[in-house]
Amino acid sequence: MITTYTTSFQSFLTELSIKKEPKNLYEPIAYILGIGGKRIRPSLTLMACELFGKPHTEALNAALCVEMFHNFSLIHDDIMDNAPLRRGHETVHEKWNLNTGILSGDALLILACQQLNGYDGKVFKQLNGLFYTTALEVCEGQQYDFDFEQRVDVSVEDYLKMIRLKTAVLLAASLKFGAIVAEANEDDMHGIYTFGLNLGMAFQLQDDYLDIFGTDNFGKQKAGDIISNKKTYMVLKTLALVNEKERETMKYWFATTAYSEEKIRVISKLIKSYKVDLLVQNEIAKYTQQAMQNVKELKIPEERKKTLNDFATNLMLRKI
Amino acid sequence: MITTYTTSFQSFLTELSIKKEPKNLYEPIAYILGIGGKRIRPSLTLMACELFGKPHTEALNAALCVEMFHNFSLIHDDIMDNAPLRRGHETVHEKWNLNTGILSGDALLILACQQLNGYDGKVFKQLNGLFYTTALEVCEGQQYDFDFEQRVDVSVEDYLKMIRLKTAVLLAASLKFGAIVAEANEDDMHGIYTFGLNLGMAFQLQDDYLDIFGTDNFGKQKAGDIISNKKTYMVLKTLALVNEKERETMKYWFATTAYSEEKIRVISKLIKSYKVDLLVQNEIAKYTQQAMQNVKELKIPEERKKTLNDFATNLMLRKI
Repeated sequence: MITTYTTSFQSFLTELSIKKEPKNLYEPIAYILGIGGKRIRPSLTLMACELFGKPHTEALNAALCVEMFHNFSLIHDDIMDNAPLRRGHETVHEKWNLNTGILSGDALLILACQQLNGYDGKVFKQLNGLFYTTALEVCEGQQYDFDFEQRVDVSVEDYLKMIRLKTAVLLAASLKFGAIVAEANEDDMHGIYTFGLNLGMAFQLQDDYLDIFGTDNFGKQKAGDIISNKKTYMVLKTLALVNEKERETMKYWFATTAYSEEKIRVISKLIKSYKVDLLVQNEIAKYTQQAMQNVKELKIPEERKKTLNDFATNLMLRKI
Repeated sequence: MITTYTTSFQSFLTELSIKKEPKNLYEPIAYILGIGGKRIRPSLTLMACELFGKPHTEALNAALCVEMFHNFSLIHDDIMDNAPLRRGHETVHEKWNLNTGILSGDALLILACQQLNGYDGKVFKQLNGLFYTTALEVCEGQQYDFDFEQRVDVSVEDYLKMIRLKTAVLLAASLKFGAIVAEANEDDMHGIYTFGLNLGMAFQLQDDYLDIFGTDNFGKQKAGDIISNKKTYMVLKTLALVNEKERETMKYWFATTAYSEEKIRVISKLIKSYKVDLLVQNEIAKYTQQAMQNVKELKIPEERKKTLNDFATNLMLRKI
């Protein structure tokens, strides 16, 4: 079960001593790492390591690297998105200030890189290579996300490419990190990475769905994507299906980012009226099935494959 | 001569193709790397590599790593300092916007790390280890610099520690990078690093001096340190020497960051009247002499030591 790995990672993290001088640099880092989150990425690293035959404890530093990187990106993304809350707590730039957010984020990115120094030889080299490619892709994804806010001609394909870069590659790399530490064969490394990509796509589309139709928002602003005019899969598909009058209505609402219950109501209703909420569920199921196909092709004992399938199923069924 | 290395690095940089998609991410990176600067750090890396017996071309990737890191720190520092100009050109966040400054800076830091992937084995491991320690120290230095702006009890020792972290360690690491690539012996690696530290201290104190008393400011605001109330060596020493009335005058001026010719005139005059401008020159000479002592102790052919001594002398004599 994935929870075993989450618990193991959590203890490892709790024992870390990040509180050093200068405290205005390190306290925000301890804060963001301390306010939780689902620890999905580091748990995937640990799980993958064990799947490919090594004790998951060997991958703890690699897992910490991905979790630190993820949290670095949260600090900086929250500044760029002007977000007041993260996981129900004040964001770093809100609790401290802009400069602290920028600098602590930078230091956390460097700390993430530094965790890989616990490995040697070929493993060290492979982890580094994958990490920097992935980290750069995540930045590219974030940039496309910004660019799309200003553009009117974003296609569904553009959007899928953006979420692949912004979200999926890090989940894929988290899994491959574990495979690298376990010194899995090339085919399996490729297989687990592709599984992660497909799962990551399903994960982000599900996130988009839950942002609008979820029952709980875990401290996040309800329908924040609608308010901030994110051109998600659902919005783009709906835009392609609506009639002229409805398109004008959507354009009208997308001209502002002011909070409005009416805007949320109108846009959600249009999405539902064209059954795009079902369309996105189909898309999520498609990526999840592809991920399960990737699992089938891995050259690991059958009983271990169940962990991966269970994880994929749970991710698809999650309500928050 | 150091200029050979600067020229060599410059050609290497010019041939790089950084212009990729998304252009809003990579254009600011090409811009900051393109607007020049003295290329001191990468030139030191190349020079050190050749000093320890390998062709400097082998250290080009390591040199690019330090130059990229330096430029990343400039982009983010300029945001944090609210600086409109860098090297006489608009800063990245001014030319684009805050978000572009943050995200392009992040991507440039990651690109810097990625340059080390051109090395292997022990060299790769050592470069990584030194790089992340140094990068984190630079962040710590930047944080102390901010902290000091708010504090009234900063000592000269605090200041020297801050500039060691913020400036000297990166110059030291730039040199050691070259030594690592050349696979120098442990004593020499330590020696060149200490040389760099001492030179870095001299360099920053000289920078502080030139900020107030320099004849040209290379696009930087004249006496910007006085305007922004930086507690430099000169200010701290002067504060310790002035009488009660003069201390009140200094406190009065340090209560604001508004631009004022009068403020610059008053503070510069106090510094001069207590001969602190000479005191800082002595301090610079002291660090430079220590650096030259470090050179003496290196186990390299005597004729090669001249390059290092010439470099130290030129740095001390520079007027911008």
